[in-house]
Amino acid sequence: MEVARKTGHAAKGPADRFTGDVWMWPRIGATEHTEVRVVLFTPGARSAWHRHPGGQVLHVTEGAGLVQSRGGVREEIRAGDTVTTAPGEWHWHGAAAGAFMVHLAVTDGTTEWAGEVTDDEYRG
Amino acid sequence: MEVARKTGHAAKGPADRFTGDVWMWPRIGATEHTEVRVVLFTPGARSAWHRHPGGQVLHVTEGAGLVQSRGGVREEIRAGDTVTTAPGEWHWHGAAAGAFMVHLAVTDGTTEWAGEVTDDEYRG
Repeated sequence: MEVARKTGHAAKGPADRFTGDVWMWPRIGATEHTEVRVVLFTPGARSAWHRHPGGQVLHVTEGAGLVQSRGGVREEIRAGDTVTTAPGEWHWHGAAAGAFMVHLAVTDGTTEWAGEVTDDEYRG
Repeated sequence: MEVARKTGHAAKGPADRFTGDVWMWPRIGATEHTEVRVVLFTPGARSAWHRHPGGQVLHVTEGAGLVQSRGGVREEIRAGDTVTTAPGEWHWHGAAAGAFMVHLAVTDGTTEWAGEVTDDEYRG
């Protein structure tokens, strides 16, 4: 058993995977098939398009944001909401334009990244 | 993609798996290999001894609690802390005596339950 108390080492999300300022702790926990991270999106910041072979669960612990799957509508999410993305489903997630968002991300399998979410896509 | 907004249906944890009052939402999300739940332990409440074939990650979002693996020391955990339990490792978790605790639980594989955590075990 290992307890991670997150006393430091927050890292900025790389520019080829995120637009705007995104911060995350190093991996805070893992099961046999998943990794668990905590991610902070500053207002307007978002991930690039990406997918996971075993899917992903996001649980919003603070603030408000947006999530969209390829071909779907943008959905607003708020603290307390939980998003399940199916295996192989392309999607992006990020903060709302005027809010920051913190979420846990439970990622099943290695993430595959595609292009950035453009301003037009972000604004819907 | 599915967004769970948790507008109701909180259920009490069954007495053969929990001591004291424990409340949880129905499963709020899942990946291919894991299920994600949010659990509230009222002061003094705790799980029975249990283990998971693929391990478990707990992320404390509110309050303070205790966690212990079989043969190990009781460890105090607080909001922001994350606990990783290895595959097959027997353990229990719960609220501190004078605090409630809310955590996310990411469970990899079907949980196997053993006996209750006695008052002596709980008090350390």
